[in-house]
Amino acid sequence: MTRDPADKLRLLRERLATISDLGAASLTLTWDRQTYMPEGGVQGRAEQLATLNRLAHEMLVSEETGGLLDALRDPDPGTDDGALVRVARRDHERATKLPSRLVEELSRSRSLAEPAWARARAESDWDAFAPHLEKLLALRRESAEYLGYEDHPYDAMLDLFEPGAKKRRLETMFEELKAGTLPLLRGISGAANRNGRGRDAPLHGDFDEARQEEFGAAMITAFGYDWSRGRQDRTVHPFCVGINPGDVRITTRFDPQWLSPALFATFHEAGHAMYEQGIDQTFFRTPLDRGASMGMHESQSRLWENLVGRSHAFWSHYYPRLQETFPGPLGTVDLETFYQAINAVEPSEIRVEADEMTYNLHILLRFELEVALFEDSLSVAEMPAAWNAGMEEYLGVTPENDARGVLQDIHWSAGLFGYFPTYTIGNVLSVQLFETAVEDEPRIPEEIGNGEFGTLLGWLREKVHRHGRKYDPEDLIQATTGRPLDTAPYLKYLKTKFGALYDLNR
Amino acid sequence: MTRDPADKLRLLRERLATISDLGAASLTLTWDRQTYMPEGGVQGRAEQLATLNRLAHEMLVSEETGGLLDALRDPDPGTDDGALVRVARRDHERATKLPSRLVEELSRSRSLAEPAWARARAESDWDAFAPHLEKLLALRRESAEYLGYEDHPYDAMLDLFEPGAKKRRLETMFEELKAGTLPLLRGISGAANRNGRGRDAPLHGDFDEARQEEFGAAMITAFGYDWSRGRQDRTVHPFCVGINPGDVRITTRFDPQWLSPALFATFHEAGHAMYEQGIDQTFFRTPLDRGASMGMHESQSRLWENLVGRSHAFWSHYYPRLQETFPGPLGTVDLETFYQAINAVEPSEIRVEADEMTYNLHILLRFELEVALFEDSLSVAEMPAAWNAGMEEYLGVTPENDARGVLQDIHWSAGLFGYFPTYTIGNVLSVQLFETAVEDEPRIPEEIGNGEFGTLLGWLREKVHRHGRKYDPEDLIQATTGRPLDTAPYLKYLKTKFGALYDLNR
Repeated sequence: MTRDPADKLRLLRERLATISDLGAASLTLTWDRQTYMPEGGVQGRAEQLATLNRLAHEMLVSEETGGLLDALRDPDPGTDDGALVRVARRDHERATKLPSRLVEELSRSRSLAEPAWARARAESDWDAFAPHLEKLLALRRESAEYLGYEDHPYDAMLDLFEPGAKKRRLETMFEELKAGTLPLLRGISGAANRNGRGRDAPLHGDFDEARQEEFGAAMITAFGYDWSRGRQDRTVHPFCVGINPGDVRITTRFDPQWLSPALFATFHEAGHAMYEQGIDQTFFRTPLDRGASMGMHESQSRLWENLVGRSHAFWSHYYPRLQETFPGPLGTVDLETFYQAINAVEPSEIRVEADEMTYNLHILLRFELEVALFEDSLSVAEMPAAWNAGMEEYLGVTPENDARGVLQDIHWSAGLFGYFPTYTIGNVLSVQLFETAVEDEPRIPEEIGNGEFGTLLGWLREKVHRHGRKYDPEDLIQATTGRPLDTAPYLKYLKTKFGALYDLNR
Repeated sequence: MTRDPADKLRLLRERLATISDLGAASLTLTWDRQTYMPEGGVQGRAEQLATLNRLAHEMLVSEETGGLLDALRDPDPGTDDGALVRVARRDHERATKLPSRLVEELSRSRSLAEPAWARARAESDWDAFAPHLEKLLALRRESAEYLGYEDHPYDAMLDLFEPGAKKRRLETMFEELKAGTLPLLRGISGAANRNGRGRDAPLHGDFDEARQEEFGAAMITAFGYDWSRGRQDRTVHPFCVGINPGDVRITTRFDPQWLSPALFATFHEAGHAMYEQGIDQTFFRTPLDRGASMGMHESQSRLWENLVGRSHAFWSHYYPRLQETFPGPLGTVDLETFYQAINAVEPSEIRVEADEMTYNLHILLRFELEVALFEDSLSVAEMPAAWNAGMEEYLGVTPENDARGVLQDIHWSAGLFGYFPTYTIGNVLSVQLFETAVEDEPRIPEEIGNGEFGTLLGWLREKVHRHGRKYDPEDLIQATTGRPLDTAPYLKYLKTKFGALYDLNR
């Protein structure tokens, strides 16, 4: 029985919708596991997620799906339907390379590793987490062989999060960043010694959690985060989950003695969330209904966190309101002192607390460790020592313990190797995008100074968000900014901003 | 390729585990929809649930499942494996009897009927709801023919919720309850006129929500509700969801001006939850990992709500603590007055607010109407009049309007016929079980008076909970109490308790 192409496209869409529903269910269950699920649910949740992922995988790799994709070769690549078929084919081909047994084992191992990591971190006990990481690493390395690569197995991992990214090009990117950052950092260290340390002292004090929550929510409401299609909860590690464009949730954690973590994590996760909320509604229940890549995603979170949320213009408008919210700790702190505080450069142990200047050095360390693990030049047992050595080399810091060192991030417990570099891609891209936005819409900086964000968000919606996964990230970067990913604007931004903040040019 | 029976059982178990995982995912998504999901998630959630339910249904009715069940005929019926095969076969056969056209039509009609009911209730407009009910009734009667029955089509409906239940036997049960309850109720009405109405006044006043929540949680912790395998959230309508025995959540709602609703709903839902938490862990991910029937489930909720939670012994221990929690409204209310308040008998329009004495009369009315609809001796158009006549006859109450009468419950809009009687089965059974527990363990009443519930819960675990769905409810009742479901203990309990409360024997 032959069918016409429209009919086949309809059948393909039905299958993709089912796969999308299973994915959305999975994401909801993952969110629940990290927010509200009782401890007794761990084992069952692992099974549920394994089953949902297996069923989605089976449907994606099935002969029926493959047959429909074969029958729909060469649709018009510029159309939404063409993009749908292209992206679905890539997902299908990638998935057919992985045996279901491996997919299921990965899912189950992740479900067990995450709570094990949380306990291990609580007790700063690397040995308790190491067997889980070894298992996940073995499974991921096996995955890399199945997925295939040209130069390096790590490229197969990168491609999962950043289609087209290569270890070799990332090494160049990190070299440029290292070369541009380390001299600046040395200059700042000297300046900090001249000016005294502890610039961020105003951010420590009594910051009532409920007020932090209320202020953060008010800010992201102003940014344009849509609460009718989202919510905010508390978790150990802040994250954003886009169940679909109608339900994009963020989480945060509060420190009642420190303003920064919750405030900037809220801006950050809202940046992710607004990306997903901005995706074209007609992509709903297709593989196009999420972000183009993790790097592109991170560019959105970092743009709102740093280019907006750590800018002088933004706080020139909102700082009085923050002072009113926290008259105790901030009543006598002026805007300039506060602006210096939120941009204090201070090499430290914790990535998520790192300033813009040192952040990428944290990522560089993780990138190098991951590559070494994949090259067998480093064992899991050796990681704490390698971590501490790297921290000393790049940042001159030795973590107090493994909880504040090699155990600090959740990623590896989720089997995410090749994910960390996308943070740096995002940092670099955030400036490249923001500069292009300001070139296109020169009134953006003034609007930010007035507490208005509609033009900026509108530009991002139009140029980036609405396209979802329709274009590959490299094509989208080229189309939006007129050139490939480029470290120059980022390094210039750092030099200008921190040169002024630390008076480096005098 | 032939396989040995052990191999086939393993394959069947795998399929059932997948079905169970899909069900658990579905329940989690339903819980999320009613607790935390943002408004924008509605459409997507409907799709996700439809997909999960469809996949589970397809797997249950598949030829592979049928083939494995056929190959596993006549396992030892007394073993867990035997019960598993028997219950799985019943689920499979029931699911295969209904044509998918009918299942889909029912699902669609329910989706339309529920909002129509909500609107009709808001406007007290029976005629707006009647066409939906007619459609659902026709589909359910058609279902009954497909499902099959011996005596009466209504039996096919009952069997969905209470395996083995028959209209004829329920008629006898309701006759006995009517004969036993109505004279008591007349006596109480006379006594109430002598003693004055408004006995429940002490339960109205300022009851801080957070304190209500804390007190309720402390009580069900004492009962034995395991928080490491559960949690409590707020919803419009309280419910319990057993995702699996390791994750059994309850919800409640608070009225800051009225103590009863949240307190007794918390006891009630905890009763349901402790049942599911007590199921044998080896039944995990099989169709045996839930309660034996809706009636058996309701017996557990009502036992903790009424036999424990509305008993004099319980409050003789905990009332001082309740007074300390709410010194304002209860500081000057003595134990006896409070005990009278929580057991005030007051015929009223609304089922969910009914006391122990009048509750079953609300159910009787619904049962009679449902049977009459299935026998064509009543039309949908005649229901409001029949409802009001029944309310007058049994309770001496005429509903203010149809919203507070025939339109008050959601059940019919979900196409649930044959569900209401399980509430009364649960009431009757709760006393039969409690009395048997006390015969077996005579120290239970004294322990309750000391705020201890370990012996009672242990008995329920051993006799009821751990068996999950292994036995049919009638067999379980017989094995546990030595006789079939029996109204005598229930009627004696009502007579003794309310005879004393209303001083009927003087």
